[in-house]
Amino acid sequence: MQSVESAAFRVDRDAGRLYNFSAGPGVLPEPVLEEVRQELPVYRGIGTSVMEISHRSPTYTEIAASARALLKKLLGLGDEWHILFLQGGASMQFYQVPLNFLPPGGRADYLVTGTWSVKAIQEAQRVGTAREAASSKDRHFSYIPDPASWDLDLEAAYLHFTSNNTIFGTQFKAEPEVEPLLVCDASSDFLSRPLDPARYGLIYAGAQKNIGPAGVTVVLVRDDFLQRRNSDLPTMLDYGTHAAKLFNTPPVFAVYVVEKVLRWLDGLGGIPAIQQINEAKAARLYARLDAGAFYRGTAEPAFRSTMNVTFRLADEALEPVFLREAQEAGLLALKGHRSVGGMRASLYNALPPEAVDALVAFMDDFEQRYG
Amino acid sequence: MQSVESAAFRVDRDAGRLYNFSAGPGVLPEPVLEEVRQELPVYRGIGTSVMEISHRSPTYTEIAASARALLKKLLGLGDEWHILFLQGGASMQFYQVPLNFLPPGGRADYLVTGTWSVKAIQEAQRVGTAREAASSKDRHFSYIPDPASWDLDLEAAYLHFTSNNTIFGTQFKAEPEVEPLLVCDASSDFLSRPLDPARYGLIYAGAQKNIGPAGVTVVLVRDDFLQRRNSDLPTMLDYGTHAAKLFNTPPVFAVYVVEKVLRWLDGLGGIPAIQQINEAKAARLYARLDAGAFYRGTAEPAFRSTMNVTFRLADEALEPVFLREAQEAGLLALKGHRSVGGMRASLYNALPPEAVDALVAFMDDFEQRYG
Repeated sequence: MQSVESAAFRVDRDAGRLYNFSAGPGVLPEPVLEEVRQELPVYRGIGTSVMEISHRSPTYTEIAASARALLKKLLGLGDEWHILFLQGGASMQFYQVPLNFLPPGGRADYLVTGTWSVKAIQEAQRVGTAREAASSKDRHFSYIPDPASWDLDLEAAYLHFTSNNTIFGTQFKAEPEVEPLLVCDASSDFLSRPLDPARYGLIYAGAQKNIGPAGVTVVLVRDDFLQRRNSDLPTMLDYGTHAAKLFNTPPVFAVYVVEKVLRWLDGLGGIPAIQQINEAKAARLYARLDAGAFYRGTAEPAFRSTMNVTFRLADEALEPVFLREAQEAGLLALKGHRSVGGMRASLYNALPPEAVDALVAFMDDFEQRYG
Repeated sequence: MQSVESAAFRVDRDAGRLYNFSAGPGVLPEPVLEEVRQELPVYRGIGTSVMEISHRSPTYTEIAASARALLKKLLGLGDEWHILFLQGGASMQFYQVPLNFLPPGGRADYLVTGTWSVKAIQEAQRVGTAREAASSKDRHFSYIPDPASWDLDLEAAYLHFTSNNTIFGTQFKAEPEVEPLLVCDASSDFLSRPLDPARYGLIYAGAQKNIGPAGVTVVLVRDDFLQRRNSDLPTMLDYGTHAAKLFNTPPVFAVYVVEKVLRWLDGLGGIPAIQQINEAKAARLYARLDAGAFYRGTAEPAFRSTMNVTFRLADEALEPVFLREAQEAGLLALKGHRSVGGMRASLYNALPPEAVDALVAFMDDFEQRYG
């Protein structure tokens, strides 16, 4: 196991690779990038690169089929699930979901736990009645509201939630246990831990955090849920269009990279293995935050994200110094989202555990010098 | 000039590169692919690849700004033009254009010259009144209707046309001279020849033919036209959202490749240079088609596309043999679109002139053996 893991997380310092804590587009596994490099300018003897082939060619067909098969295997999805590779990111899903699944005169529930769920409910409200069943806005989205406090609508067409809040560093620790089927924006923790498919009607994830480059959105939609969609939808925005066939040119290269990331994850031991690694990475960094008063985590401890660790310095005036010195030390992209400031270390699947070790060592040193 | 051109169109046989006539995603310039390869796994000393950086980072900001500047230079666009890098391909534009620009109670005109314009008008008819101002369906889309026959609406919000018909191999030889502003699906001949910006309100092009990999759609929209758009649009489908700022994560890698293709084109001498090369490639192949009765071009001669050359064999039963032997001879992806059959040679900007020479030589040989 150790050797599989160290190969999977190798960091080629000689090639100039540094530790990349970007919140997204985020770090990709180095073995994946190496394969991409080797498959340029010719993909496996076909005479062209993968960027130059028809999306109806046997080569692309095989890549997309492999990506779907790997997703089914990793998540334990049955054949009742359609797996779509769409474009436009989560932002397009914010509109496409209610357009398909908010029936005329019907209602949907939203759990509002951060910037992205605010945007999701706003787009849904353009389409119909989208209710805020709970919100953590009162404490600056630093927690996930207690399910006992949720104002649920039993007739809701679906309950929408954002499983991980990239900006505020919080995460649902369990799937909402509610009557309606769940619709989940899983962009920033997709494939970082198991999920229970039976609870969901639809799951979407922009690829650029845990599973690939920007430019493809993975949408998982269960067939019985799909059949409930509204009629007379614009062709491209109708999930049924894409579930039925390959309708238009997909983002070939992005799907190709996603397939490699999925194979990388499968080779590592799948979701149970990555979950363990992710929890260890997060635990190590949160322990450092809690080891004194110099650093301060911003999410309430019970709801801390394993993916995005947000923190401040007790002396906020030192933060620009911290960020500059971290960058100089080869610890990249630690600046918090522009809407909240401070620091954010994103620990996505592909981030090597040694990157967290390096960050913790830097934090120790920084505190010693400035504390 | 000759040496610039031969470097630009080099084909690395040792690396296994073959001649790629794919209709799209299509051939890319080899120097571009080589640069992409060299910039993996680290882009220019930044410590990560270009796929792993924030779309708000200085690196991506610079790439996107360079792509915009090159587009303006190549097309002679003034500052009144917004240049957007969207997702969803032309198929999404078929809906987004009327959603934004077909005013309630208003009308738009469409020139219907092939499969893609049929799809475009169908999506527009979901939104409002889209009129067929002309159609070449009567002769299987083998020509462009004479402007004198167009049934134009002087009050139309815009006139939509498809400048090049990838499937049927026809192309507008001049821009429609009409009162309303033009909206053009230029996906398959974008940057292959000059255009007159003053006639257009909006031009869109899926990148995967002449300017990059699949996954990004270039949209050029003139500010005065943009200001006429409808209100209360879904955020992601409102062109104004993207004209105002970088709203959401763009397809970073696809834009990065597009920027390189634009630099390649600029280095080659820009649009006048590529137009000359394109016309020479097409003339050579059409001359071969017309040199006897063994081959037969399917588009009417006056409307033949310089980009997609569609043809049949007099003996159609020989076509599978032609396609198989061509493939074996390293001439890839010559099969016609599944809806029309026969052969199609796509001669996009990046296709080396020597590829056409090789195809013509193969056609000579094939005719000699089977004619």
